[in-house]
Amino acid sequence: MAHIALPDESLPGIVGLFNFRPETAAPLQLLAETLLRGESPLTSGERELIAAYVSHLNDCHFCHTSHASAAMAHLECDLALIDDIKKGFREIAVTPKLRALLNIAAKVQKSGKQVTDEDVAAARAEGADDQEIHDTVLIAAAFCMFDRYVDGLGTWAPQDHEAYREMGQRMAFTGYVRYPVETTV
Amino acid sequence: MAHIALPDESLPGIVGLFNFRPETAAPLQLLAETLLRGESPLTSGERELIAAYVSHLNDCHFCHTSHASAAMAHLECDLALIDDIKKGFREIAVTPKLRALLNIAAKVQKSGKQVTDEDVAAARAEGADDQEIHDTVLIAAAFCMFDRYVDGLGTWAPQDHEAYREMGQRMAFTGYVRYPVETTV
Repeated sequence: MAHIALPDESLPGIVGLFNFRPETAAPLQLLAETLLRGESPLTSGERELIAAYVSHLNDCHFCHTSHASAAMAHLECDLALIDDIKKGFREIAVTPKLRALLNIAAKVQKSGKQVTDEDVAAARAEGADDQEIHDTVLIAAAFCMFDRYVDGLGTWAPQDHEAYREMGQRMAFTGYVRYPVETTV
Repeated sequence: MAHIALPDESLPGIVGLFNFRPETAAPLQLLAETLLRGESPLTSGERELIAAYVSHLNDCHFCHTSHASAAMAHLECDLALIDDIKKGFREIAVTPKLRALLNIAAKVQKSGKQVTDEDVAAARAEGADDQEIHDTVLIAAAFCMFDRYVDGLGTWAPQDHEAYREMGQRMAFTGYVRYPVETTV
């Protein structure tokens, strides 16, 4: 049971919250769409991995599993990716640049002030540019919001990984601004 | 010096980041406008206090001081409010309901999972309804994003409280979607 009465208790995670408050859903959906599917030097697959990794660090099952599933859809890999993210990317091939950006994301998850000049220099040494560093920090920061929103209101989430497969496909290829809520955007 | 090269280094905090990346500025500004100035059973003054308090807990000088100054503008009080927030609201009159909501906000700042049924019941006992609980959690979560964004990219911020007075007036009464950047919203 969520901490507040949602109009449709069957909708999991953030989807039930979007349905409860369409006014705030609109900018949140637009933010997710821009961050994860908008123009960026990082691929959508890479950005979904950052989102899923930060959500794992925040112990948010719904956001970790759903964004891992979106990454899986983009990268055409299997459900094992969900657990691989928890283990620090042992199986999936991660470029040195993405690994350096994931390190920055993990720092942001703790606090913005944890990001050091050395962390940024290490990412630059692997080829990351200003926009990739910017987008990594903002995606990591944004999932510190989404994760807290989902768990702070005690929303329900499916446990089983398989339940996220179709959701991940939809997030990856339909996007974030077409949930069944009325928006003014 | 910020971690990335901003087009105008004189713009403080998040303003310089909005200028760097207008595509992400648009949903972020719309989110701040909706959360802090849109329709809600909480006054804008109360919502700015929640934002400033969470930003203080995140040790983000720019967001704490600027949103405290916006609260000051709404509530028609003086610059002493900025330090009073750090001390846990000793001077300013805070209703029992707002105090219970600030307790929830402080839990969200740590992790969404820290919010307990008892925290929510305590807020309800002081008269808080579902929408007030929702908006408190989302504002607290959102400032866990904004604070990390501002500090994670190492932006510059004025130290002196007086420097935030006019900014707070502008945030309170002009709002969040009129910064000098091009948006598509």
